[in-house]
Amino acid sequence: MEKTIVVLPGDGIGPEVTREAVRLLETVGERFGHTFHFAYAKLGGVAIDETGTPLPEETLKACLESDAVLLGAVGGPKWDRLPGPQRPEAGLLALRKALGVFANLRPITVYPPLASASTLKPEVVDGVDFVIVRELTGGLYFGPKERRKGDHGIEVSDTLVYSEQEIERILRLAFELARQRRGHLTSVDKANVLESSRVWREIAERLAPEYPDVQLTHLLVDNAAMQLVKNPRQFDVIVTENMFGDILSDEAAMITGSIGLLPSASLGSGGPGLYEPIHGSAPDIAGKGLANPLATFASVAMMLDYGFGLGAEAEAVRQAIARTLAEGWRTADIAAGGPALSTEQMGETVRNAL
Amino acid sequence: MEKTIVVLPGDGIGPEVTREAVRLLETVGERFGHTFHFAYAKLGGVAIDETGTPLPEETLKACLESDAVLLGAVGGPKWDRLPGPQRPEAGLLALRKALGVFANLRPITVYPPLASASTLKPEVVDGVDFVIVRELTGGLYFGPKERRKGDHGIEVSDTLVYSEQEIERILRLAFELARQRRGHLTSVDKANVLESSRVWREIAERLAPEYPDVQLTHLLVDNAAMQLVKNPRQFDVIVTENMFGDILSDEAAMITGSIGLLPSASLGSGGPGLYEPIHGSAPDIAGKGLANPLATFASVAMMLDYGFGLGAEAEAVRQAIARTLAEGWRTADIAAGGPALSTEQMGETVRNAL
Ligand SMILES: CC(C)[C@H](C(=O)O)[C@@H](O)C(=O)O
Ligand SMILES: CC(C)[C@H](C(=O)O)[C@@H](O)C(=O)O
Repeated sequence: MEKTIVVLPGDGIGPEVTREAVRLLETVGERFGHTFHFAYAKLGGVAIDETGTPLPEETLKACLESDAVLLGAVGGPKWDRLPGPQRPEAGLLALRKALGVFANLRPITVYPPLASASTLKPEVVDGVDFVIVRELTGGLYFGPKERRKGDHGIEVSDTLVYSEQEIERILRLAFELARQRRGHLTSVDKANVLESSRVWREIAERLAPEYPDVQLTHLLVDNAAMQLVKNPRQFDVIVTENMFGDILSDEAAMITGSIGLLPSASLGSGGPGLYEPIHGSAPDIAGKGLANPLATFASVAMMLDYGFGLGAEAEAVRQAIARTLAEGWRTADIAAGGPALSTEQMGETVRNAL
Repeated sequence: MEKTIVVLPGDGIGPEVTREAVRLLETVGERFGHTFHFAYAKLGGVAIDETGTPLPEETLKACLESDAVLLGAVGGPKWDRLPGPQRPEAGLLALRKALGVFANLRPITVYPPLASASTLKPEVVDGVDFVIVRELTGGLYFGPKERRKGDHGIEVSDTLVYSEQEIERILRLAFELARQRRGHLTSVDKANVLESSRVWREIAERLAPEYPDVQLTHLLVDNAAMQLVKNPRQFDVIVTENMFGDILSDEAAMITGSIGLLPSASLGSGGPGLYEPIHGSAPDIAGKGLANPLATFASVAMMLDYGFGLGAEAEAVRQAIARTLAEGWRTADIAAGGPALSTEQMGETVRNAL
């Protein structure tokens, strides 16, 4: 198989972790007989510094022509004072929209050797294994925004907008995923307050009979925020709108104790997917060789799986990560004060485990 | 002192817990020489059943003329299929708006004898003590909602609207509260995406110099959802907009292990406040004498404190609750399978401890 991957190293620790991810992909290619071509492009703060815009034309063009996009991380204090549409994050949002990756999949799993790093009791996090499916190209993130002078000073608004089609396609994707897993789908909304949530719930109810093998449950978002803390093991697949998904998926990730290790895949219909670790750009440790590349490696596994249909290769990467951790190898963030590998050493260890 | 309190028992376990709260207030009145007059009115499902509307005119009138409003809980499966504006929750939202109670205060504290009930490790929850100040009468809850037929089926929107004045008054209240506590204010927003959050942040920055004794920190809402799990002890006062506050305050409450015991106060400028437990109407145990009245008692303490300026009386109620728990008395929800008091017995025990 031959594939072209656009790498967007981005800001902070992004360049370090994507460098190791590229090496890992090269090793996968050698071992399984595939050729991966890498093209590099700029996104985020680094793009602002060089071109004045967080998503340059040529970056977008390269991504659209690729088979998959691998992103490190974007953002940092340096660009925090810029007006909204000129920030690094705006580049990421524009890229998501342009690629049409409406479904953000975040598997929430616990790596047993790291479970004790969770602030939750071991008996609560043990065996947690669910996926959050977050709608990624609609809602409050992309609706009209307005700021104007009114009678009481500034009047400001953001708009949470969804079309039936947008809601239906994300729900269908989640139903399909639940069907391939344990058959339980939790749809999270705020139907007792939001009209958009009521439409969301109606559509979920309308689709449910088409997936008789999936058990659909509705949960209000405030209750979901509680249930994630109370009993995260109850979940299989959670589906929710963009902003709720942003909040709940970070909460859920923190619960595992493995947050530095969790990947994500953003998928559309047909075009290239966007794969990135869920951690941020960590400007405080950037350039020091301290960053943990495992979340990016796990994102590579998702790329192999969802992007290229290479299930065996994906599984090999996941097992190499698990074995490395089981053998006790750690980067500083998860070493709990013990001995730690550098980013590069961790990359090498996982490649050797492959 | 003479005060008129409107009691809204509401639905589910609401009538049981407010009945005990009224008895408690009577005992406080006797012990400290105050006269509390109680007027009863209907809100929520019970009002729908009797009058066809969740907030009848006479209920609103009684509340507006009172010195404070005590609410049990509203809602239940019976009314879940009604259209949005006819639901029990709509009555509560309309009441908040009509009373102008723009600030919802939720103290998040851990009762030491119950700390082990948390799913978080004891060393993480031990000593947690902060207050969430949630904006309560603006944002997505009250902005224009629209549902219409578009090119891709239904198009639906909710609008997150704030005026400068609304943001300023809630931030000022939070700054004042932080000043009376440990002097640390965390303002939670999503300034990297939402225009309303950027205005929120600008106003917070503009006000900060007026409160030099308060240390202001900004936190993105997704990060806040993580930090609450990672290290809840870092917080003193958190201030945020309506929907974020709904989600984060429930998450925070669950973290303590004391969720069934946590109170809330909704305050405006001058008019009567609204005091209610943060737990729901628990229809599954309604009418069985199993409900825990302690969250409603703690809400009574907030009423005495914030509503009537009766600090000593409030403290007496809080201490009676703490003593009762320290002596080992429990209702079923917190008994962990051990012996449990009924709602009425728990009420009596706390009154005796007073
Ligand atoms: C950087 C930011 C705009 C982004 C989001 O809110 O979507 C991030 O938090 C994420 O979850 O990928
Ligand atoms: C019942 C519901 C409308 C309400 C809200 O979302 O405000 C509740 O969750 C709360 O937090 O008081």
